[in-house]
Amino acid sequence: MSQSFAPWVQTSLQQVEEALSAWVGQDAPPVLAAAMRYAVLDGGKRLRPLLVLATCEALGGNAQAALRAACAVELIHAYSLVHDDMPCMDNDVLRRGKPTVHVHMGEATALLAGDALQALAFELITQDEHHVPLIMQARLCGLLARASGARGMAGGQAIDLASVGLQLDEAQLRHMHSLKTGALLECSVLMGATCAEVAEPIWNSLQTLGRALGLAFQVVDDILDVTADSSTLGKTAGKDAAHDKPTYVALMGLERSRALADALRQEAYGALVTLEALGVHHADHLRGLADWVVQRTH
Amino acid sequence: MSQSFAPWVQTSLQQVEEALSAWVGQDAPPVLAAAMRYAVLDGGKRLRPLLVLATCEALGGNAQAALRAACAVELIHAYSLVHDDMPCMDNDVLRRGKPTVHVHMGEATALLAGDALQALAFELITQDEHHVPLIMQARLCGLLARASGARGMAGGQAIDLASVGLQLDEAQLRHMHSLKTGALLECSVLMGATCAEVAEPIWNSLQTLGRALGLAFQVVDDILDVTADSSTLGKTAGKDAAHDKPTYVALMGLERSRALADALRQEAYGALVTLEALGVHHADHLRGLADWVVQRTH
Repeated sequence: MSQSFAPWVQTSLQQVEEALSAWVGQDAPPVLAAAMRYAVLDGGKRLRPLLVLATCEALGGNAQAALRAACAVELIHAYSLVHDDMPCMDNDVLRRGKPTVHVHMGEATALLAGDALQALAFELITQDEHHVPLIMQARLCGLLARASGARGMAGGQAIDLASVGLQLDEAQLRHMHSLKTGALLECSVLMGATCAEVAEPIWNSLQTLGRALGLAFQVVDDILDVTADSSTLGKTAGKDAAHDKPTYVALMGLERSRALADALRQEAYGALVTLEALGVHHADHLRGLADWVVQRTH
Repeated sequence: MSQSFAPWVQTSLQQVEEALSAWVGQDAPPVLAAAMRYAVLDGGKRLRPLLVLATCEALGGNAQAALRAACAVELIHAYSLVHDDMPCMDNDVLRRGKPTVHVHMGEATALLAGDALQALAFELITQDEHHVPLIMQARLCGLLARASGARGMAGGQAIDLASVGLQLDEAQLRHMHSLKTGALLECSVLMGATCAEVAEPIWNSLQTLGRALGLAFQVVDDILDVTADSSTLGKTAGKDAAHDKPTYVALMGLERSRALADALRQEAYGALVTLEALGVHHADHLRGLADWVVQRTH
């Protein structure tokens, strides 16, 4: 891992936290603002925002557009967690080491806060015509909307919901996760690319990279669900198994799951080598994120 | 009312229904697609889409952009009804004469369908670069996101939620409704204007028109809640009073509420006269919609 990676992560995280703190709940009614900020601030790995920033940076793109896109994708992720945790879904009480939003502020406020966070994602992208060209705004909104909706994250959650207690095969599980978590991670990389307007071969390699990382992330998540404890994870461990949800570990065992994660990392590295050959020379931080995705312990 | 109004409404509604039927649930997992379509198709007054179409038409704008914007704003409205009806919010079982989505398909699916409908709204706007210029897409997304979120509809719902059992004054009630229902109705008119790229004086008059109609709509809604029965309304009558929610009728009585609705109609007519003076000569259908908003019985 490059020596510059850790300081870059620290600087980037600070930038994202400051931007989110400035933008989330601004001019909103007090209770709603509090719920939105509680759901978003001071927590989370911020993998999606970091992917946006690292990709844009690797391509020498528009940094202000990337910061808005980075916050937007994190808001989509945050709203999905708020709604996922609600009693009618996973009924979870712990998230990022804190009580979940509906436990802390009530179900109605949690529902509304999630809805408002989704809208805010699209608002952030479309707010600053001076620094983010309208054409870029439209492309970013298009990518994010598709990755969030019924053909992306929400669709994956619907398949997940319909699969409890069923025996999925590996292809079905992969499809479910490619939507549920993969779509938004892939979208993060592609939004970063959109901030730079790249040629098609570079776009395609970035898509390969984003897809590999998206799947690897979920495989590792499934592994951690059975190998880590709740305090390390910051959320309830073992809950997938307890809810009888299909996971890679349940389907193929721990060892083969780890081999799959490693194969996906190699796939991501292959894409990075191709990008280098295509003239993308500043992808060190993207490579660092790829390492982190498969080596993380929480 | 112009003789051409009724046939125009019929043609426009058919156009909107066909577009929604083609676009809602497309390529989504079956259960999610069914819930989204159940929430959106075969019901509703479609006032917001009609406002988009009538405004665009009055200005000679881009009809394909307007159709996408019209469907998008209706999806935001539809998702808000699905979430509003859920047990943790209004706990309503009847909507548009049918069981509500969570009664019909379960709470988890209703929650996800609402989320997916919001994302689809932004996806529809950003899908067709060939017919809808990217710059127009960005402006439409920006208007819709702001009107939907914490500074618009979701913010109004949060104030509504926080106001149950409290005594609001007229200014507070007006503020709440200007966000809760007003923002999206105003946005409908402004999205229609965005499909035509109008000069500032016309934009301002359309904003006045949209705001007046937005408030008038809510005042009439409050009047109907106490004067109409459930089968006429297609939803549970008297539920605002039963939930001890603040309404215009509770605050100022039936007669003064009717006078307010009439004053708002006159305000809307004033804006239409100004628009005519500014060279907008084809606003008959907008005028027809203004009439309908204050004269409707359901």
